[in-house]
Amino acid sequence: MKKHNFSAGPSILADEVISKASKSVIELNNIGLSLIEISHRSPDFVAIMEKARELSLELLNLDKEKYTALFLQGGASLQFLMSAYNLLETKAAYINTGSWSDKAIKEAKLLGEVHEIASSKSKNYNHIPKNILIKNDYDYLHITTNNTIYGTQFHEIPNTNIPLVADMSSDIFSRNVDFSKFDLFYAGAQKNLGPSGVTLVVVKKEILGKVSRNIPSMLNYLIHIDKDSMFNTPPVFPTYVCLLTLEWLKNNGGLDAIEKLNNYKAKLIYDEIDRNKAFVGFAEIEDRSLMNATFNLVNGVDGKKFNELCLKNNISGIKGHRSVGGYRASIYNALPIESVEILIDTMKKFENLI
Amino acid sequence: MKKHNFSAGPSILADEVISKASKSVIELNNIGLSLIEISHRSPDFVAIMEKARELSLELLNLDKEKYTALFLQGGASLQFLMSAYNLLETKAAYINTGSWSDKAIKEAKLLGEVHEIASSKSKNYNHIPKNILIKNDYDYLHITTNNTIYGTQFHEIPNTNIPLVADMSSDIFSRNVDFSKFDLFYAGAQKNLGPSGVTLVVVKKEILGKVSRNIPSMLNYLIHIDKDSMFNTPPVFPTYVCLLTLEWLKNNGGLDAIEKLNNYKAKLIYDEIDRNKAFVGFAEIEDRSLMNATFNLVNGVDGKKFNELCLKNNISGIKGHRSVGGYRASIYNALPIESVEILIDTMKKFENLI
Repeated sequence: MKKHNFSAGPSILADEVISKASKSVIELNNIGLSLIEISHRSPDFVAIMEKARELSLELLNLDKEKYTALFLQGGASLQFLMSAYNLLETKAAYINTGSWSDKAIKEAKLLGEVHEIASSKSKNYNHIPKNILIKNDYDYLHITTNNTIYGTQFHEIPNTNIPLVADMSSDIFSRNVDFSKFDLFYAGAQKNLGPSGVTLVVVKKEILGKVSRNIPSMLNYLIHIDKDSMFNTPPVFPTYVCLLTLEWLKNNGGLDAIEKLNNYKAKLIYDEIDRNKAFVGFAEIEDRSLMNATFNLVNGVDGKKFNELCLKNNISGIKGHRSVGGYRASIYNALPIESVEILIDTMKKFENLI
Repeated sequence: MKKHNFSAGPSILADEVISKASKSVIELNNIGLSLIEISHRSPDFVAIMEKARELSLELLNLDKEKYTALFLQGGASLQFLMSAYNLLETKAAYINTGSWSDKAIKEAKLLGEVHEIASSKSKNYNHIPKNILIKNDYDYLHITTNNTIYGTQFHEIPNTNIPLVADMSSDIFSRNVDFSKFDLFYAGAQKNLGPSGVTLVVVKKEILGKVSRNIPSMLNYLIHIDKDSMFNTPPVFPTYVCLLTLEWLKNNGGLDAIEKLNNYKAKLIYDEIDRNKAFVGFAEIEDRSLMNATFNLVNGVDGKKFNELCLKNNISGIKGHRSVGGYRASIYNALPIESVEILIDTMKKFENLI
């Protein structure tokens, strides 16, 4: 019996993606070899990498002359460093909306002056700061578009006259916004894009090559671009699974269609959180994430029976992060509506027990 | 029909590893979830990571109090940088035995003085330099134990009074040497250990924490050690396949048994290279790699028919690297003797045609 997988990441992937990925490990495209034992320079893998890069830009509706997509290693954590290495000459602005912003700030500080121009830290990151003055003398502004741990999300992308950099690890490919507002964004694959072990980086080429420091090869976007995202051996299997997911997304209507579905799933779960007497939402309503719904037990309610019901109903990965407590339902692209309905049903059953 | 896979990397893995890896993508250990959609903090994956780290040290016969094993992202290419970031305070010694040594030198130069104390570059890296004076005032000595492109290998590990650092990407777990002679070594998994996308780093803990620079978190071995190799989301699937390969290796007798087999396969192929009138070996005989046998056509011989015969006999990945030309038979741990025999048979058939 397959579980209802609400894991915050690595997280659920589409059934057909899982099935094709599993087959590729035995044999890729009838070539007589497993995907994981062919050279990354073989025509079969080169085609996979090229298609994954192209399809990323196509789904994001970005100009292929101006932007490029890379599939790199190291996760968003390495991007915290790489983005600063490549863009931070003097000072940069960061909006702090959670632990991951905080980590990005820490790494950037090694390379220049970092101004935290807004923060929701004092309220345990339960909202997205608004009405922020963004001066024009920063090298860039960095934001975290979706905050997995706290369940908040930027619903309005800030307007800037300086390059806009974003960690989109937990909401990339979940909605259709004007991605051309961003100059650099990156996402660890393990939410909406694929398995862990690969990171999508999308960059507007004209912003690169402007800092004066020597950049180590592996941290230099220009080198990765010059080598078609294969400066060194890429993570072959994770990249292939990303391609399968991108194809699945395209075949199911792309970003507009998935956004509609995600809005619907989010409305279902948040309506229940707000209606149910046992639970209370964590994030400010207007900043609620469409990807991670965070909620706690109402004061005085014991969650033991809810946990038991979840287990019984094959609901997995619902435990909240220790910084927030309570529960977190991650409702990424591949999570079926049925799983959300079963969770809601379980919440209702629990409400009747208290 | 399965091909005979002589690819230099990513490269052949054991059949049972491939089969278990494929199944895990559908479902891991009957938990009702795919390996690639569970949290890396789940007990199932934490156990995988811990076992892979422990088994690495066990097979290498290293003291678990002194050494630790990490499974990181970024390949050997990121280790070129990380090793220098963590160890290079003033100056370091490098032995240059090929393109990968060269790249390691390039990255280290960003962080300190680098002395190339020996090099085989002037002879297109066809041998391993010998009788090298290693002074004691370097922070460390860096070597590349096996040179995939040129088919050379250190058969004697240099004795040093300074920390010894090694890139073992293409010969780790292929032979039993005294690994306690090394203080830090690393290997991109995609030869003898697993698929691409994960890198094994083995480090003697006492050598760390001695440089004065601020090390970015993702490049800091101490941080990765402190977080049990899960500072950030690890490459789950590649790490699991490494564990499967390590278990396969242990079940088949460990390093002593595989070394015996590798010696046997290497003798078969090199004997044929030396006997066959159509081919000539590339590397100096005493420095020949047990992993990558490089050979060229004898002057004046046209290889077209050999290429056709290889294709017909399902021999794959035999083309030499452009820096050497000719052919390269990579005969990693998982390559069956039968594949070597078929290659030899094909070489003989070709000899009869010229």
